[in-house]
Amino acid sequence: MKFGKPRGTRDFLPEEMKIRREIMDRIRAIFELHGFEEMDTPALELWEVLATKGGEEVERQIYKFQDKGGRWLGLRFDLTVPLARVISNNPDLPKPFKRYCISKVWRYEEPQSGRFREFVQADIDIVGTPRIEADMECLSTAVDALRELGFDGFEVKINNRKILEGMVEVLGVENRIADGIFHALDRLEKVGEGEVARAIRALGVEEGKVSRLLDFTRFKGDEAIAYVENELRSNSKAVEGINELRRMMELSKAFGLDGTIVVDFSLVRGLDYYTGPVFEVKTKSKGIGSIAGGGRYDRLIEKFGGAPTPATGISLGVERLYEVLSGEMKGCTAPATKVFIASIGEENIPESVKICRELIKNGIPSETDLMGRKLGRQLEYASSRGIPFVLIVGSEELRTGTFKLREMERKIEHPVRLEDVPSFITKLGGSPQQAPG
Amino acid sequence: MKFGKPRGTRDFLPEEMKIRREIMDRIRAIFELHGFEEMDTPALELWEVLATKGGEEVERQIYKFQDKGGRWLGLRFDLTVPLARVISNNPDLPKPFKRYCISKVWRYEEPQSGRFREFVQADIDIVGTPRIEADMECLSTAVDALRELGFDGFEVKINNRKILEGMVEVLGVENRIADGIFHALDRLEKVGEGEVARAIRALGVEEGKVSRLLDFTRFKGDEAIAYVENELRSNSKAVEGINELRRMMELSKAFGLDGTIVVDFSLVRGLDYYTGPVFEVKTKSKGIGSIAGGGRYDRLIEKFGGAPTPATGISLGVERLYEVLSGEMKGCTAPATKVFIASIGEENIPESVKICRELIKNGIPSETDLMGRKLGRQLEYASSRGIPFVLIVGSEELRTGTFKLREMERKIEHPVRLEDVPSFITKLGGSPQQAPG
Repeated sequence: MKFGKPRGTRDFLPEEMKIRREIMDRIRAIFELHGFEEMDTPALELWEVLATKGGEEVERQIYKFQDKGGRWLGLRFDLTVPLARVISNNPDLPKPFKRYCISKVWRYEEPQSGRFREFVQADIDIVGTPRIEADMECLSTAVDALRELGFDGFEVKINNRKILEGMVEVLGVENRIADGIFHALDRLEKVGEGEVARAIRALGVEEGKVSRLLDFTRFKGDEAIAYVENELRSNSKAVEGINELRRMMELSKAFGLDGTIVVDFSLVRGLDYYTGPVFEVKTKSKGIGSIAGGGRYDRLIEKFGGAPTPATGISLGVERLYEVLSGEMKGCTAPATKVFIASIGEENIPESVKICRELIKNGIPSETDLMGRKLGRQLEYASSRGIPFVLIVGSEELRTGTFKLREMERKIEHPVRLEDVPSFITKLGGSPQQAPG
Repeated sequence: MKFGKPRGTRDFLPEEMKIRREIMDRIRAIFELHGFEEMDTPALELWEVLATKGGEEVERQIYKFQDKGGRWLGLRFDLTVPLARVISNNPDLPKPFKRYCISKVWRYEEPQSGRFREFVQADIDIVGTPRIEADMECLSTAVDALRELGFDGFEVKINNRKILEGMVEVLGVENRIADGIFHALDRLEKVGEGEVARAIRALGVEEGKVSRLLDFTRFKGDEAIAYVENELRSNSKAVEGINELRRMMELSKAFGLDGTIVVDFSLVRGLDYYTGPVFEVKTKSKGIGSIAGGGRYDRLIEKFGGAPTPATGISLGVERLYEVLSGEMKGCTAPATKVFIASIGEENIPESVKICRELIKNGIPSETDLMGRKLGRQLEYASSRGIPFVLIVGSEELRTGTFKLREMERKIEHPVRLEDVPSFITKLGGSPQQAPG
């Protein structure tokens, strides 16, 4: 009998893990270059924390359970709610507080292509400033991370919740169905206008208002701004939202996003906690589609008992990146190990181990045989692992001090003295790691 | 109302997280130098997987719950059981399979100093070889990782389960109480001989045998081997264990562990799955005590339906390392950010952002003001964050092309041209990261 693993979860063998590590490391490096600092919170949160954010759909997706003491807990379903809890408990952190977190979250959803129940998110957030520069900094950092991973051809869709809210106010739609309208609009790209119109009608919105709502979504870019400016100028909330949109456009060049920003009034971003700018990054290269998204959530932290604290952030979909990049990143799956020390004869194992340790001290990742195999089998093993060099250690070699260093791919053997192995390896293309201190 | 977090879990703010990251990165680097490769498995496992390993105590500590589909799941309580499941499901992995994993595990235990319900383990394991070289490789890699973290003065306690089993066989103790005896012995160092003797007596073992059992534990080192060799020579299992111990001593020099190994027949290591060598690393420096432990578990993988597969491994206690090192590693908590670009006047923000991005492109971690603050406040912020340089950008500077670069600690300002900032920073001690590609 074999044992499986929970649906929607995955194991990552070393070849796969190396690619994931490489993706996460590159993202991390860009986040740090932009001044974001890592923070970590538990996988487990108290149930009341997870439930505070609201949003029935998300609540349904939370792994929820009682611990042995009867306390209700849950696995975090995103990285933003834990951040909000931390901020509310640490009011004295210097602001703006720029943090990143690249870590696992859990959602009990129906698994499908690219969607898992345990998955990694890479989030950056800026807490403590209401300014649009912070939203732009999140966006530009996310785009830089994607550039670092080889993507180009970006389209950054932006919208503003204040405009959406102003829109329904101007139309005189009841407040309690506004969320329903937003959720319907959010699906526009996926299901088309007809379906969205039906969904909004089903909420009890009259026909004339349905078509006006859809009108808003038909314009893109500058034209869109002009249109809503005209339609919604009576609504101060909407005007605020429009000004924020304009400011994003103005700053786009400075933030390296010129020519990428597209205003789209159907962009809602599912999560209920957004209060201002919302955004989504797509890239045309590698057919990846939407790969990052986020927005401003100025009222979330006070829900956790903190002072009212503006905040904005963006989340990169690491699983989608892994799916798209794993093909082309096969080069990352070579082992770190540069040299396999093959031992001829049981009696020479201790010397092989010593030589191995000597190479390691010189910063050269090395392994030696741990199975007492014949030379041929050791070479096969090194080859199957993709280790580029084999150093052969037999009694004769130990006596003379001259060893054979075999380049596995070219099948060439070089006579070397031990002390020359590190420079030889470096010269032949196996760059050493930094030696341990 | 403020919200807490589950008992025994922790948040790590950036200063703390940097130290943890540094510890984990250094351990990771040593693991990779020794040819171990990273593997990842889900935090969630099917209940039957977690329960398979056996051990009632551990089972009591598992966070166990039903998912919304009624399936029983649990959070992993160690990194070895998931490894065994993966190996049994992937019989074709090249052997030996050397994997590492530095990740979180969960145990519902009473939190106390240094013990948490969510904590990080750093494990290495070698699967597919029964040879003692593999056990030694795990031990020496763990000790090298500890050396890299600045420890010295190691004591590596070793024992062998085969000797313990032979011991109870020779004494004619019933099999079903052997585990009870082992658990009692395991507590010798903590509770002393009297308490252990009482515990063994309580299992129904007669007085003469109790004192013989304790006799075994009184000898250390070579004397200990000679003693058990004499006492247990009739028992083939014990003899096998003694030979393995001897081989470990023989190889200790080659593996860089000469003078550190101490035979201790009271060493059991709680987990029930060990079958051969067991070991524990202590270090006298920094008063850290036992910091790594492990052993051979040749029969675990077949329990998961795999072919009988020898395996051995060791686990480093990252939380204990963090506790001991966090004081002296304060130097790691400096921000990655080297330059804060202070903007004088709202109108110069876009240019400041551009300059910031230019520095980032040159591999210099940089930030700019995101709050529209006055210069004085910006300088205060940079200072409170510990950012070493501030570049001041005002209209005058933008016109002339000469900027003021302020060394925050020495309170000195240098006139610089933009293109000279990177080399200036490098020269003054802020080494650049590798520039993004």
